[in-house]
Amino acid sequence: MAKDLKFASLLDIYGAVLTDKQREMLELYYNEDLSLSEIAANEGISRQGVRDSIKRGEETLTELDGKIGTTAVIEKYEALLEKVVKKCDEIISDCRSYTTTKSVIEKLEGIKSEISGETA
Amino acid sequence: MAKDLKFASLLDIYGAVLTDKQREMLELYYNEDLSLSEIAANEGISRQGVRDSIKRGEETLTELDGKIGTTAVIEKYEALLEKVVKKCDEIISDCRSYTTTKSVIEKLEGIKSEISGETA
Repeated sequence: MAKDLKFASLLDIYGAVLTDKQREMLELYYNEDLSLSEIAANEGISRQGVRDSIKRGEETLTELDGKIGTTAVIEKYEALLEKVVKKCDEIISDCRSYTTTKSVIEKLEGIKSEISGETA
Repeated sequence: MAKDLKFASLLDIYGAVLTDKQREMLELYYNEDLSLSEIAANEGISRQGVRDSIKRGEETLTELDGKIGTTAVIEKYEALLEKVVKKCDEIISDCRSYTTTKSVIEKLEGIKSEISGETA
């Protein structure tokens, strides 16, 4: 199976509600980027056993996100902020092309660095 | 006990991962605003039994939010957006008091209604 990196982000959000064992396997696989065989050797279990554990962990993460929806909440806010930044760019470009004051541009640049500072 | 309405919002976020019974009790208490005695009569259990169930449900919600932290994520974005709206107000007020174009103001008003529309 190919590693789907969305699970690294789901693990970051929901990892604390998994069992210790489940979280450990997923962390080794997604955060430490170990292979199934490396994890199997570390844990002293079969490669198939590791694969099954990780599959179950992924299912739990997907189910939790389906029920709680934190990913969707984050995506909603990020999309909104992206729109705000684009609108600021439009206004800045307007201000540069016709009559306005330098301070308006500076303040709009301020909004943008605020948003990029908090969402990086 | 006094009803703490933060649990209505936690129930909205995490309710789907509670057991059906737990969710039902909390919904009657927080969303339908029934009293402990009313729920007890409906469910055919003691008032103390209802109280214990709700307490346990509240503990589960608090624990989930401590582990997953969706409330904190939402608060972070809401605070950021509030700052953006305040900055827009500042700029609009600047624009009204000295040289600028009507379209700059209109666009900034556009940013604000976008934000209030998506976060209401």
